[in-house]
Amino acid sequence: MESIQFYLPVRIVFGRDCVLQQAPGLFREQGQKALIVTGRFSAKKNGALDDVEQVLKQNQQTYVLFDQVESNPSMDCVYEGAALARQVQADFIIAIGGGSPMDAAKAIALLACQDIPKAQLFTQQPRGKTLPLICIPTTAGTGSEVTQYSVLTNDAQKTKTSLAAPCLFPQAALLDGKYMMRLPRTATIHTALDAFSHLVESALSKSASVWSKKLALKGIKMLQPYLSRLDASEWSLEDRDALLQTSLLGGVVIAQTSTTAVHLMGYPLTYFHHIDHGRANALLLCAYLEKVEKHEPASIQEILDALQLENLSQLNSIMDRLLGPKETISLEEAKQFASAAIQSPKSQSGIISLTQEDIENIYCRSFHLAFQRP
Amino acid sequence: MESIQFYLPVRIVFGRDCVLQQAPGLFREQGQKALIVTGRFSAKKNGALDDVEQVLKQNQQTYVLFDQVESNPSMDCVYEGAALARQVQADFIIAIGGGSPMDAAKAIALLACQDIPKAQLFTQQPRGKTLPLICIPTTAGTGSEVTQYSVLTNDAQKTKTSLAAPCLFPQAALLDGKYMMRLPRTATIHTALDAFSHLVESALSKSASVWSKKLALKGIKMLQPYLSRLDASEWSLEDRDALLQTSLLGGVVIAQTSTTAVHLMGYPLTYFHHIDHGRANALLLCAYLEKVEKHEPASIQEILDALQLENLSQLNSIMDRLLGPKETISLEEAKQFASAAIQSPKSQSGIISLTQEDIENIYCRSFHLAFQRP
Repeated sequence: MESIQFYLPVRIVFGRDCVLQQAPGLFREQGQKALIVTGRFSAKKNGALDDVEQVLKQNQQTYVLFDQVESNPSMDCVYEGAALARQVQADFIIAIGGGSPMDAAKAIALLACQDIPKAQLFTQQPRGKTLPLICIPTTAGTGSEVTQYSVLTNDAQKTKTSLAAPCLFPQAALLDGKYMMRLPRTATIHTALDAFSHLVESALSKSASVWSKKLALKGIKMLQPYLSRLDASEWSLEDRDALLQTSLLGGVVIAQTSTTAVHLMGYPLTYFHHIDHGRANALLLCAYLEKVEKHEPASIQEILDALQLENLSQLNSIMDRLLGPKETISLEEAKQFASAAIQSPKSQSGIISLTQEDIENIYCRSFHLAFQRP
Repeated sequence: MESIQFYLPVRIVFGRDCVLQQAPGLFREQGQKALIVTGRFSAKKNGALDDVEQVLKQNQQTYVLFDQVESNPSMDCVYEGAALARQVQADFIIAIGGGSPMDAAKAIALLACQDIPKAQLFTQQPRGKTLPLICIPTTAGTGSEVTQYSVLTNDAQKTKTSLAAPCLFPQAALLDGKYMMRLPRTATIHTALDAFSHLVESALSKSASVWSKKLALKGIKMLQPYLSRLDASEWSLEDRDALLQTSLLGGVVIAQTSTTAVHLMGYPLTYFHHIDHGRANALLLCAYLEKVEKHEPASIQEILDALQLENLSQLNSIMDRLLGPKETISLEEAKQFASAAIQSPKSQSGIISLTQEDIENIYCRSFHLAFQRP
């Protein structure tokens, strides 16, 4: 029988000016004082912070701004944000930005309510009370606004690690494509490819169920008309909305299935080579799909059909063009990253099992490394 | 732009033996003592109660059985259940059955935690603490396992009234078509037509958004192969699962949009004539669709396309055959019901506005009453 597992306890509101129109009621329900969590610049430029401040003022709610979230947020950053939330006695958190501010805000919402030593943050499953969190994405890629994941830099393990727990789901997500109108070309490409990777990985996840699979393929179909022209210089509001809806669907499906080996393999690329998260996934995706195709060709065919492509080579060409010149990693690194990745259960979360050698090979093929078996 | 509003904070688990396999963890998370809320007979016959008791025993959790929920539960029934929940200090509630036990359990979960005088139950919006509720549907129609509605008999207003609030959403829904294998022919027809009505009303709701509309049409497409043979005498497990998935989708979409005038008009038929809830909706549906078609033909066409039918007459023939001989109501009643219905905002929740005369006419056409304007 078709089995279904579905859980998405986030109030999703998607539409033009939804912050101005719907946030007044939503914010009011959460308490009197907000902590706004964001990065240094983009929320100020794209209009999202202005809209949020306008609503809070109109609601006569007070707020404090924590605009110190860097890309790939560190443990120090989230503990600092949590200390501020406690100090100012914030009742709720509003996250504005891409994946980094939203993921940091989830950890801050947790740490503001619970004393968790740094050494235990990645080792124990978060549960219990957190501050209510409302997310406003300003990129179209992460889907973090509807997921229970907080991906943070893990210096001890020298990678990025995902906190994953139902208590980390935001209360609400407010999505409006207008905040993406000035998103730079590279950020547009990389974030959209992150969303693409979420959709593809979820469709190929061992944990996919009937609904998540259909939604993932639906998201891929929605992305199809945009994929080969992600490097366009002009974007209409409607296009931005469509990309944002794709990204939202990506978040919805990884909330059901989690991501797979592609994300796992991308994390050290970001940690050691500072490769943007979406780009890291995109660099690895085609070699991963080629590996899956050998064992599960029908599943790859479904994705190709959704993309209106005939084979993976065509997809590879599109990705190569979008990604431009690739970074280099050494063979030694490929081996080292694979040796770490195989320790994670996420290496086995796709519909095919991967050996350490498979993972080394995917790195090698992705970076055109000549791989020599001893 | 396409706007989306979506909120469904219920953990959905659908699959064979999901109670035996997934309830152990789910039940354990909720506390030590359960109140099982169900009707007098069906949960005992269809195997659902056995499965639940087996899991609770295996978990070493204690429980008390409240098996007194009648069809169209009364206020007395839910206050009695809530008193029992308090008396035995239940930590959570497990509802097993069709819409009546599940709707009663939602009110019991509320009243077990809050002192609400009977006179205020229908007049104030429920909010705040409720006991956690896990729903196990044993009919495929109501969708109550995933909605925030508790529909109760309202003797003061002489109709059924819906409590509606986010705090009434169940924590989880466990769905397995095997519990429907012995569902009698009439119950199968009426509950499936209730699901059909949910899907159609939601698709034609003023509150429909892109996602809810697509899901509603998807549900109608899934029901299509079964609709004209709902009176079959034999059902496979797969068919039961498919009907249950249709019903689940119906619940998912009315959780987004609410129902419309059809449900509103059906309630007095149940109150005064004891017509089964699903049947009451089905009796009224075609005349309602004919009215909508006059103003919004494209929306009706989408539904007909999903049903692979050419016109509403074909649907009418199918419904007439499934419903068999119809009950009678008087012209006086039609006027009286319409006069009450027009007072409710639900009379205006569809994509077309209805006057009191429109509502009278829908009653008259549904029951072949000769309507004479003064």
